Amino acid sequence: MPIFTAGLVGVDVFPHALNAPAIKAMDRSEANRVFMGDGYSNAMFQRHSDRVIVGNHAFLDVARALTPPLVRHHVRPLTGLDPIDGRTLGKGDSCVLDFGTHLVGHLSLRFAPVGSPPDAPLHVRLIFGETRAEIDAAGTPDSGWLSSSWIQEDTFHVDVLPADIDLPRRYAFRYVRVDVLDTSPKYRVRIERARAETVSAVDAAAVAPLPKSAAPFRWLDDVSLRTLQNCMHGVFEDGPKRDRRLWLGDLRLQALVNYETFRLNTLVKRCLYLFAAVPDERGRIAASLFVEPEVVPDDTYLFDYSLAFVTVLRDYFAATGDRAALQALWPSALRQLALALESLDRHAIVRDADGWWSFVDWHVDLNKQAASHAILVATLRHGAELAAVIDPGRSADLLAEAQRLAAAARDRLWDPAVGFFVSGAGRQVSAASQVWMALAEVLEPRENAALLRRLRTEPPAIGLRTPYAHHFLVDALLRTGEREAALAVLESYWGGMLKHGADTFWEVFDPSDPTFSPYGSLRLNSYCHAWSCTPAYFIRKGCFDAGA
Amino acid sequence: MPIFTAGLVGVDVFPHALNAPAIKAMDRSEANRVFMGDGYSNAMFQRHSDRVIVGNHAFLDVARALTPPLVRHHVRPLTGLDPIDGRTLGKGDSCVLDFGTHLVGHLSLRFAPVGSPPDAPLHVRLIFGETRAEIDAAGTPDSGWLSSSWIQEDTFHVDVLPADIDLPRRYAFRYVRVDVLDTSPKYRVRIERARAETVSAVDAAAVAPLPKSAAPFRWLDDVSLRTLQNCMHGVFEDGPKRDRRLWLGDLRLQALVNYETFRLNTLVKRCLYLFAAVPDERGRIAASLFVEPEVVPDDTYLFDYSLAFVTVLRDYFAATGDRAALQALWPSALRQLALALESLDRHAIVRDADGWWSFVDWHVDLNKQAASHAILVATLRHGAELAAVIDPGRSADLLAEAQRLAAAARDRLWDPAVGFFVSGAGRQVSAASQVWMALAEVLEPRENAALLRRLRTEPPAIGLRTPYAHHFLVDALLRTGEREAALAVLESYWGGMLKHGADTFWEVFDPSDPTFSPYGSLRLNSYCHAWSCTPAYFIRKGCFDAGA
Repeated sequence: MPIFTAGLVGVDVFPHALNAPAIKAMDRSEANRVFMGDGYSNAMFQRHSDRVIVGNHAFLDVARALTPPLVRHHVRPLTGLDPIDGRTLGKGDSCVLDFGTHLVGHLSLRFAPVGSPPDAPLHVRLIFGETRAEIDAAGTPDSGWLSSSWIQEDTFHVDVLPADIDLPRRYAFRYVRVDVLDTSPKYRVRIERARAETVSAVDAAAVAPLPKSAAPFRWLDDVSLRTLQNCMHGVFEDGPKRDRRLWLGDLRLQALVNYETFRLNTLVKRCLYLFAAVPDERGRIAASLFVEPEVVPDDTYLFDYSLAFVTVLRDYFAATGDRAALQALWPSALRQLALALESLDRHAIVRDADGWWSFVDWHVDLNKQAASHAILVATLRHGAELAAVIDPGRSADLLAEAQRLAAAARDRLWDPAVGFFVSGAGRQVSAASQVWMALAEVLEPRENAALLRRLRTEPPAIGLRTPYAHHFLVDALLRTGEREAALAVLESYWGGMLKHGADTFWEVFDPSDPTFSPYGSLRLNSYCHAWSCTPAYFIRKGCFDAGA
Repeated sequence: MPIFTAGLVGVDVFPHALNAPAIKAMDRSEANRVFMGDGYSNAMFQRHSDRVIVGNHAFLDVARALTPPLVRHHVRPLTGLDPIDGRTLGKGDSCVLDFGTHLVGHLSLRFAPVGSPPDAPLHVRLIFGETRAEIDAAGTPDSGWLSSSWIQEDTFHVDVLPADIDLPRRYAFRYVRVDVLDTSPKYRVRIERARAETVSAVDAAAVAPLPKSAAPFRWLDDVSLRTLQNCMHGVFEDGPKRDRRLWLGDLRLQALVNYETFRLNTLVKRCLYLFAAVPDERGRIAASLFVEPEVVPDDTYLFDYSLAFVTVLRDYFAATGDRAALQALWPSALRQLALALESLDRHAIVRDADGWWSFVDWHVDLNKQAASHAILVATLRHGAELAAVIDPGRSADLLAEAQRLAAAARDRLWDPAVGFFVSGAGRQVSAASQVWMALAEVLEPRENAALLRRLRTEPPAIGLRTPYAHHFLVDALLRTGEREAALAVLESYWGGMLKHGADTFWEVFDPSDPTFSPYGSLRLNSYCHAWSCTPAYFIRKGCFDAGA
């Protein structure tokens, strides 16, 4: 593949790599998988002890300069649910504050003593819930297998009363349960004031109202906007309660919604520069970044997430026309394609692998080969689009690669007998494989549409699990002209969350079990998760308008 | 009692009382007693809902101006016990830091991650112990009946690592157990640094060394000094772990030791002005004060503690010759005597009462009448001493009152058949009654000495319980010339705490059960308690010198 042999990426963008004393490629055998339980709770982790991160300080400087200021609002709890006025709390007493909807920010409380002068500290536990169910589950043993440190529960002592308590941490919550663990026999306390200071890089109130034609979708749009707003801080976070990191796959969807709503395009730019600033020694971009106390890439690398860099850059350029950024970041994008192409087998099919090598969807039984192959085909086309602007000489080659891989897919992964693409040695038929092949337009348009119809009439046993995967289903249906079917997914899946009281869209939603947790504990679920916020994108693009 | 009928105190010192709209005397029937368990654990509380506090702002201003700056030192934990260097901690792991001796101050810890980038917060619990036993008892259900909020245990989350954590609260501790409640499967933590910043109004290192003649008492003296140092902050606190308040009876003993050691006499002055600044509408001084967020008297009034104001003022004037303070505070002192004399019955004996009306010692079966009567006799003499300086016309009257009450005691409370003073309707014989009668010198010197010898040879069933009461036993023995017996008490009682590893002297000590807690839980005991610090007073006064 001559277009990738020049090694220009390593030389031009990562000069430090040349001096790195012990450059060691990632050895996949070092990846450390942790399996606990079955089904969704089979978590997979990668852990690499010997990687080399090659920081690009110029990129980091660009990113730093784009750090957004935070918008702050003050919110008081609704009264009525458990009125706090006039009620005094002693040892063992509780009350629940309801702030009316999901928010992200800092809580302040004023405790005043009632009775004798306080002769012992006040000991308080606060339990924050994005949903009421988390509050109600508090105190039960935590059965989850993710770190219990994600549970938003903090205890503290107040030595001097009355006291204004400004909780130092940022929480994601609608409800706060206040448990008075102890006062003393001589006094009780009253909560005289409760206030949340919300933080976000954006303000949903400033977004243009929906056109009248989209009125039926207003609720879906509202909740989408709140979801995205509450995930936008110093970076696009995946979830403000749990994880709180910048993930490249999630960024892809957040950026799309942002272009139609908040239009804080500099935040997308900042995130692109952050990812491009800290690749490993081969130029591979990490699946996620930590940004505090400094920018550190997670030691997790995912085939499809690395490729998403290309697509996010493509979408960003389409939204902004920012040629300077494209120029700067193009080598990083090109490098992701080059690295992906290294994983082809002799039939030009992406090599399958065990474990957590590509994301696609959160389904432990899902074979990722076919979907990953399709994602590479689609991303080569995105790369070709960018090359046409910035690196015209490569555009045709990239398109040719896409065609070659599409042909290989038809040749090797298409099973005409079942009418579906198959994946892996077990020739697995999954919904995800079909969705991605449809998006990659591996088949002719007519066959592509038939594929998606067949997906609905003969649903494979391996279905879609996450809002992330459902987004691509809706996208694929719209591309094949199945507007009604796309709308039905929107209404049943995202609308299903609304019916269950969602103030923001959830990380996971199983319509047959709304309390389902992939972590074994709903207290560990994230109920405001950016990859779920895409209804606003489709709605505001007019995809469901009568004439669309 | 003509000397108290002028009502001058109410007019001169508490002018605001005249305008108080709803002056209501304390109704003792309102006192709220809480009994739990038996023996020491019978706690008694007073609670008054309708008292009027008459603040003297001039006194508060004097007190405020005398607020001492705090001396700070940095202390690092000893290595060796549980080495923190190089050891990493994951979920469920613990280590114990040993700072070598008891200290009061603020803890800083630096946590660094080990492994993958931290993908979840660190959740930590810290348990502070003045003694190792408190650390070892952590995690067991707390059986105590005092507020559990006194247990020095705090949990917190660290969202960004590495992190320097400065714990906001002040703790009293030698040991800190660090429990890592959770990290994540991808990382562990190391404690890279641990540091305590001690705080006190004084510095034991600056105290004059013991004379050579007192060399055998050096350990007792060291521990006394550390005890008092660690209780001296914005005021003389009774215990830096639990209570942390300014108590008048405790102040009496702290001030005595201070005059022989730190000589921070302005702190005694500050505390006297604080007490005098916030009496109730009758001029009665509270048993204890809260000083944060503002000066508030506790709603507990104790017969002997109110009288201690006179004695502390007497001792303060003797130590300083501060005539201006004496002039200003004399009316408040006189008022305590007047109020105490109001409680005499027709035989000129202090009326007995149920409940928590006078302290004397911490023994729920102790009848307080005789000891309280003796305390009044002794305090009238202290008042006469002060009057001789500042109000000469009253001195003889006060002495005459003391004589009258002493005679009444001999007449009504002395039981020649048993050779002891009796107390209450049940004619109870207790050690405390004899100790206080001896200090009040109600009997002739020879009989007084015989009384204390009899106390040793025929110990009453109701003995002494606290270091506070044992101080007065030592004092009484020394005053009757029983140096060897006094020394034996010092060595067996305070020396007994040393044998059990005390770094500071304890609030309670039962030689037969060193783990005894009056609160039903040793985790609620205070192991640095100011009323226990008096060995240094006796030692530095030379009471045990060979020639004494």
